[in-house]
Amino acid sequence: MANHVYKTIELTGSSPKSLDAAIANAIKKASKTLHNLRWFHVTDTRGEIENGRVAHWQVTMKVGFTLD
Amino acid sequence: MANHVYKTIELTGSSPKSLDAAIANAIKKASKTLHNLRWFHVTDTRGEIENGRVAHWQVTMKVGFTLD
Amino acid sequence: MANHVYKTIELTGSSPKSLDAAIANAIKKASKTLHNLRWFHVTDTRGEIENGRVAHWQVTMKVGFTLD
Amino acid sequence: MANHVYKTIELTGSSPKSLDAAIANAIKKASKTLHNLRWFHVTDTRGEIENGRVAHWQVTMKVGFTLD
Amino acid sequence: MANHVYKTIELTGSSPKSLDAAIANAIKKASKTLHNLRWFHVTDTRGEIENGRVAHWQVTMKVGFTLD
Amino acid sequence: MANHVYKTIELTGSSPKSLDAAIANAIKKASKTLHNLRWFHVTDTRGEIENGRVAHWQVTMKVGFTLD
Amino acid sequence: MANHVYKTIELTGSSPKSLDAAIANAIKKASKTLHNLRWFHVTDTRGEIENGRVAHWQVTMKVGFTLD
Amino acid sequence: MANHVYKTIELTGSSPKSLDAAIANAIKKASKTLHNLRWFHVTDTRGEIENGRVAHWQVTMKVGFTLD
Amino acid sequence: MANHVYKTIELTGSSPKSLDAAIANAIKKASKTLHNLRWFHVTDTRGEIENGRVAHWQVTMKVGFTLD
Amino acid sequence: MANHVYKTIELTGSSPKSLDAAIANAIKKASKTLHNLRWFHVTDTRGEIENGRVAHWQVTMKVGFTLD
Amino acid sequence: MANHVYKTIELTGSSPKSLDAAIANAIKKASKTLHNLRWFHVTDTRGEIENGRVAHWQVTMKVGFTLD
Amino acid sequence: MANHVYKTIELTGSSPKSLDAAIANAIKKASKTLHNLRWFHVTDTRGEIENGRVAHWQVTMKVGFTLD
Repeated sequence: MANHVYKTIELTGSSPKSLDAAIANAIKKASKTLHNLRWFHVTDTRGEIENGRVAHWQVTMKVGFTLD
Repeated sequence: MANHVYKTIELTGSSPKSLDAAIANAIKKASKTLHNLRWFHVTDTRGEIENGRVAHWQVTMKVGFTLD
Repeated sequence: MANHVYKTIELTGSSPKSLDAAIANAIKKASKTLHNLRWFHVTDTRGEIENGRVAHWQVTMKVGFTLD
Repeated sequence: MANHVYKTIELTGSSPKSLDAAIANAIKKASKTLHNLRWFHVTDTRGEIENGRVAHWQVTMKVGFTLD
Repeated sequence: MANHVYKTIELTGSSPKSLDAAIANAIKKASKTLHNLRWFHVTDTRGEIENGRVAHWQVTMKVGFTLD
Repeated sequence: MANHVYKTIELTGSSPKSLDAAIANAIKKASKTLHNLRWFHVTDTRGEIENGRVAHWQVTMKVGFTLD
Repeated sequence: MANHVYKTIELTGSSPKSLDAAIANAIKKASKTLHNLRWFHVTDTRGEIENGRVAHWQVTMKVGFTLD
Repeated sequence: MANHVYKTIELTGSSPKSLDAAIANAIKKASKTLHNLRWFHVTDTRGEIENGRVAHWQVTMKVGFTLD
Repeated sequence: MANHVYKTIELTGSSPKSLDAAIANAIKKASKTLHNLRWFHVTDTRGEIENGRVAHWQVTMKVGFTLD
Repeated sequence: MANHVYKTIELTGSSPKSLDAAIANAIKKASKTLHNLRWFHVTDTRGEIENGRVAHWQVTMKVGFTLD
Repeated sequence: MANHVYKTIELTGSSPKSLDAAIANAIKKASKTLHNLRWFHVTDTRGEIENGRVAHWQVTMKVGFTLD
Repeated sequence: MANHVYKTIELTGSSPKSLDAAIANAIKKASKTLHNLRWFHVTDTRGEIENGRVAHWQVTMKVGFTLD
């Protein structure tokens, strides 16, 4: 960890299935353009309701990566 | 969204199974008397412990609906 | 609840599987030395990323128990 | 103020015009069914964007009224 | 606690006497119309001053009850 | 900015007209006795309601000035 | 409330007797030099311990008054 | 909303005119390079003071957009 | 205070009588095993309701002591 | 500490050298007019950047003193 | 400051030497690709421990720059 | 990191010299009895003032370690 610098971005992932899947979706998407993803930190958990059920889970998280 | 007004209430759902189930239970219950539920926002995640295991998951959330 | 006093400690559980499993792991570990665990309260949800996937889920929580 | 008790509810007003109008809309709507509205307290200011402009202003606020 | 759902409302009680009395007043008032009050959680403690003395104590709290 | 020291005070301005006017009123008032006002930072937005309308807008803000 | 401006200061009162007395002490002291005290808002409750007892209660609060 | 992922950036807009104009300026600027702006969320409201007047309004906000 | 190090623990005291008594109970209990208790800091004030009255007051606080 | 009352003010110190120096500058300045300074509490740490270096460190802190 | 728009990014700098060096490292790194860095604001201070000593200081901060 | 569980404790270190030294003192002290210290996270920075100078720096931090 010799003087490394990290950048954090904020993403919101969504999924009709579960909280865990919403997180996984956002990370998978971000990893297509950013190759040094290191950690995430959930900051908000929300969702949309339709007909008395959770229609979409939405998780906002900070995602950190190494600046080369 | 022409000048709509929304109201938010705070509910706590519980479930012996999982966090996701605790959320689903609260929304199902609320939807019996409120027909315009639109979104939820988790504000607290707790639980009760018995014999070294999670006995009940408890999720507190704000639930929003349209005022007719 | 006659004048009971409770103590709260802060633990972080981890699991390669899910958020729920990370919580369960920490409680199981703590219950080996503390026999009066009563409740938990999640304060932070994080994780480590490897190859575009969540490698470890990490949940920090406060865990309360009765002081005898 | 002899031992009065107040209740607070949370509302979100919206308006295509301005923040002030979003607040006024929510209060006008609530005053149709609640006759003792006394104060409001803004807790969140958001909006929706369309074509590079603010399409709707949304203000979430707590609104307090006297319980008779 | 088999899948119970709880609702939380926000009340402000006041009293010329003390903080504890302000809390008690709000709970007494609420219990006239809500029969399943379970817990309260203080979120704000304020008061009004007249002639260098506390004229009214005001305590805002969340009050939780079981949804039947 | 050679080793300057700033002091911050907290003011609440009110206006029957708008949020912006409530802020302007407080700053105008403070500038009569403090001649180095530099910036403000809104910390709370409230108001009083009468007859289903906002009767007074109240904005609490921190106001900073240079200590000579 | 015609365009009034209020100032808030932060005080900490202490008392060997109780929380309520610590608040009353701070307000009594402040009212000797400030004649328009209007409200207080508790922001912190602390105390010092000696020999397993509370030796001093300390309450920090914001106190608001009208700027003439 | 089929598994969409959103990114949030933080912007500060300024305007000599009003809070609403400061928000509008930031969104207009951002929309020149980002074509999927969806919402904003105000996180800070500040300003600079000159000669007893608000010289510039500054609004910091999070702005969300869809990741294609 | 020559390079002293302090440790803080979190306790919740309860009492059927008052907030002050709930705090005193927790400190008395803790002082049986920890002999250097120095200060406390209230972080949460809650209670349980039975038959429209406060049945138990619960105060959560951080308690600090000197590490020898 | 017999019923003492303390007042807290908010200061921002700056220094081209370091965080510690920014704090020391503010306290030195304040002590010229206030003779009972007792403690400080850092609430914000900021700075200005010029040419890829920290040009000024700025530390905002609450500073407490005894009211005679 | 005629209608300027600023963007804020979040960086974490690390250093085996000190907090100040961790901040300086992050700013130096960011200034290689961003030429209008204006200010920073520390949001988190952490570190890693090895053999009873701080092995790395880690400072997370928001860094603001002018959007051209 | 195979299902590890971590515990966090809260310590306050003090030093007449600097913030960094206050942190180092607390970690050195804690490492005498806890052999798996992994990280720290600063939560509060305070100090005592004597004669217009910082007499003691006090840093409160969470310190995490592996539960074996």
